[in-house]
Amino acid sequence: MKPVCLIIGAGAGIGGHVGKRFARDGYHVVLCRRGNAQGLESLIAEIESDGGSADGRLLNIVEENAVEELVLDVEKNTGPIEVVVHNIGAQIGNRSLTDTPLKTFELGWRLSCFSLFRLAHAVLPIMAERGKGTLLVTSSTAARRGNAGQHSHAAAMGGRRMLCQSLNAEFAAQNIHVAHIVIDGAVDAPDTLGKMLGENAFDKLRQEKGNEDGLMLPSHIADTYFHIAQQHRSVWTHELDLRSFSDEAWWNHAVSVSF
Amino acid sequence: MKPVCLIIGAGAGIGGHVGKRFARDGYHVVLCRRGNAQGLESLIAEIESDGGSADGRLLNIVEENAVEELVLDVEKNTGPIEVVVHNIGAQIGNRSLTDTPLKTFELGWRLSCFSLFRLAHAVLPIMAERGKGTLLVTSSTAARRGNAGQHSHAAAMGGRRMLCQSLNAEFAAQNIHVAHIVIDGAVDAPDTLGKMLGENAFDKLRQEKGNEDGLMLPSHIADTYFHIAQQHRSVWTHELDLRSFSDEAWWNHAVSVSF
Amino acid sequence: MKPVCLIIGAGAGIGGHVGKRFARDGYHVVLCRRGNAQGLESLIAEIESDGGSADGRLLNIVEENAVEELVLDVEKNTGPIEVVVHNIGAQIGNRSLTDTPLKTFELGWRLSCFSLFRLAHAVLPIMAERGKGTLLVTSSTAARRGNAGQHSHAAAMGGRRMLCQSLNAEFAAQNIHVAHIVIDGAVDAPDTLGKMLGENAFDKLRQEKGNEDGLMLPSHIADTYFHIAQQHRSVWTHELDLRSFSDEAWWNHAVSVSF
Amino acid sequence: MKPVCLIIGAGAGIGGHVGKRFARDGYHVVLCRRGNAQGLESLIAEIESDGGSADGRLLNIVEENAVEELVLDVEKNTGPIEVVVHNIGAQIGNRSLTDTPLKTFELGWRLSCFSLFRLAHAVLPIMAERGKGTLLVTSSTAARRGNAGQHSHAAAMGGRRMLCQSLNAEFAAQNIHVAHIVIDGAVDAPDTLGKMLGENAFDKLRQEKGNEDGLMLPSHIADTYFHIAQQHRSVWTHELDLRSFSDEAWWNHAVSVSF
Repeated sequence: MKPVCLIIGAGAGIGGHVGKRFARDGYHVVLCRRGNAQGLESLIAEIESDGGSADGRLLNIVEENAVEELVLDVEKNTGPIEVVVHNIGAQIGNRSLTDTPLKTFELGWRLSCFSLFRLAHAVLPIMAERGKGTLLVTSSTAARRGNAGQHSHAAAMGGRRMLCQSLNAEFAAQNIHVAHIVIDGAVDAPDTLGKMLGENAFDKLRQEKGNEDGLMLPSHIADTYFHIAQQHRSVWTHELDLRSFSDEAWWNHAVSVSF
Repeated sequence: MKPVCLIIGAGAGIGGHVGKRFARDGYHVVLCRRGNAQGLESLIAEIESDGGSADGRLLNIVEENAVEELVLDVEKNTGPIEVVVHNIGAQIGNRSLTDTPLKTFELGWRLSCFSLFRLAHAVLPIMAERGKGTLLVTSSTAARRGNAGQHSHAAAMGGRRMLCQSLNAEFAAQNIHVAHIVIDGAVDAPDTLGKMLGENAFDKLRQEKGNEDGLMLPSHIADTYFHIAQQHRSVWTHELDLRSFSDEAWWNHAVSVSF
Repeated sequence: MKPVCLIIGAGAGIGGHVGKRFARDGYHVVLCRRGNAQGLESLIAEIESDGGSADGRLLNIVEENAVEELVLDVEKNTGPIEVVVHNIGAQIGNRSLTDTPLKTFELGWRLSCFSLFRLAHAVLPIMAERGKGTLLVTSSTAARRGNAGQHSHAAAMGGRRMLCQSLNAEFAAQNIHVAHIVIDGAVDAPDTLGKMLGENAFDKLRQEKGNEDGLMLPSHIADTYFHIAQQHRSVWTHELDLRSFSDEAWWNHAVSVSF
Repeated sequence: MKPVCLIIGAGAGIGGHVGKRFARDGYHVVLCRRGNAQGLESLIAEIESDGGSADGRLLNIVEENAVEELVLDVEKNTGPIEVVVHNIGAQIGNRSLTDTPLKTFELGWRLSCFSLFRLAHAVLPIMAERGKGTLLVTSSTAARRGNAGQHSHAAAMGGRRMLCQSLNAEFAAQNIHVAHIVIDGAVDAPDTLGKMLGENAFDKLRQEKGNEDGLMLPSHIADTYFHIAQQHRSVWTHELDLRSFSDEAWWNHAVSVSF
């Protein structure tokens, strides 16, 4: 039986490519996304036509019991979850404090911080019982520094980063690997960044940065996710950044007199 | 008319001492805490007997509209808020993931992260309108690193730290000073640490560390809060730590072979 | 007898103003700088005319035994050093790797990192013997992040930051307070920034930022140095930033798609 | 012709294993170490008997022109350097400030910080000319936090970390990948940790941690070095940690009341 890789947030960007990568190397992947049943079917079909094995679910992660039942269902009907990928952001673009209603702030937290807690709460004890497991968390720049307009996103991401460290502190010795992967730039992902920016702005950005590989290519991001999941337990990575060669780091802006 | 300093979380520890310090130097302080009306009355009486000016409210910060109405009420009936101190933690001691119910995790976030967002949402636009203001946030070690058993607390604190950076990024240029004050050790506070540890354990800790000044003295913490609120706007501090001379930093544990 | 405050690097910017501040509050200050005897005399005269007490030395800090002999001499002939301020940078403007000769890189380290080690080596054991003391270190943004063109400066500053943490880890329990003060922006200092940028560029920058308080005012920086030196030992600050209200933090540049 | 991987610091630990890994996947490796010609010969022989290609040099990295001539020589006589690994530490165990002579502090810097600057100065412009290259730097916990007794080591490592960020800021856009790899625990390396602790203490540590994989296995560390060198340029990692599942993070010590 193939080991199972469960992906929460499997669209056309990082999540989908991570799914393809794990499927290519022998995992059965369970792909979950909120909507777009057709996109989900296409992804599964693509994986299967490459000789891989996958199934999928539509799932609203903020619904009560949604994550909890998913984990139990996969464990019971598909197989033991070896790797779980949490790939849910809550980026809403730049919004001033006044333009960020309380509901928006709360939803951002439910989507990207509380959902990880719920997922961990459901799956880590099962993994600990089995004596092994891997939890890969897609994160972003905002987990390491706030920014104007990022009140909701940065607060959710910053909380999640500390949660990852806490989970690792409790579970590493039980042979469970938690990795916090900081996506430190713009991903070439039409489903997320593309939708947020709008098609025209996204195309313009791709052209400016370089169509071929100016934005971060999710298929190559997937290579690093896979590598991390295969690391020997004596040399686990708990946090790393990924950023394009063409991108300045966020801490290197060109202010003339800041040394 | 005296400038107003509003303190959310004014018990016998940091909050109360910060209140006394600002009252001593000419502020009218509005002291808010969840319960213990008698303690609140004593604090007000103590401030008044020292020649200061204060009033108080009992307030459950997680209740809908509680913070929002408080801010409007103080602005209308007491005076323009010049300094606001957010002094709400959600430390519940060390709890394993399994022993941290979803409700607990959510409450921790409501108490210490969402409450700051709500407070900022209510008060910063008013301050921005006036062209000045100060927001001091009491934080803790957990805002900078997770730890086993700190899932709820670290996630709330880590989120709040990024929120402070985001607020600062939006509001500094509008002459509003946001400072994130990392209390990096145990405070000599019977109301919070004392209650959490229990009286005996707290007394034992005080004796071990040194009764006189082994734990962090909240009256002296208040001196630094006051200094930060008085900094000239060309030289604002946005983050600092406070830790006792007798305490090892959290990153300096005595593992023999970790370099 | 007045307590002694020794300042290494006392020009017309932070060092000189810190000297004036400590003199105003009762310290005898010993002002050291590399050259400009006239500037040094003026500073002493200004302090004395304000009723303070000061003397000065010209000192090349990279010379063998210079720091070591200074400390012994002050201790013997002036009085016990209570506070020592290390205020030596090695900013040389932005230089590409190729334009940074090995000698330049080494000199940057000698000036701003090795000099602190030598100073600490000379003075901290004496303070430890007496059971108290304070070491304040002026640092900069480059201590926390590298940048293109800052090879020499960032390497020296980053090393110095870790040295401060190491000194604190060894000496805090001996009642010696080491604080690392991150000057996170441009200081209104004609002696250092002014000379590096050139008079015209410096004037232009001052005008752009706001002549009155657009750049960081060293007289107000001095207030925070003084506060830190007076903190009660149960609540010491070990690291803090100082940045103007008008300045964006270095991590908040306006890249459109970095979240 | 095989691509060349140059390794500065190729003993029986990380350096040697990284050499074997790159040789196994088609690189010609140039192995440099300070002494032990026999160990170097054995390593080359082992690589060759596995079908790989390697040669070696004895090299004292602090000698004038040593690094500079090495780079030119390899470029001229062996082939274009595609990957260079800087694997030089300067850990001397825990030494108090008083027990750390100025010479020791300076040597630590020469070995582990200045040597990287010299290496980068010699090789990066050549790589930039060719339009590609990779520089992997072995780092340690001390690059991110100082500690009692680590004055020399932490200052050198902290400086080096900022240097890596500066190099990356200048050279990433020129298609040169600089990665700072934080070895965040004890490595199962008889040549370095073994010699520093002494044979008995090292054996005892291995037994305590678990002989099989309680310490970090350098052969597996090498897998991650290799992965990083193969990352697509749109998704480079610039900093990551590696730590054993059995190790607590350095920020998670068991102080009962530090939250």
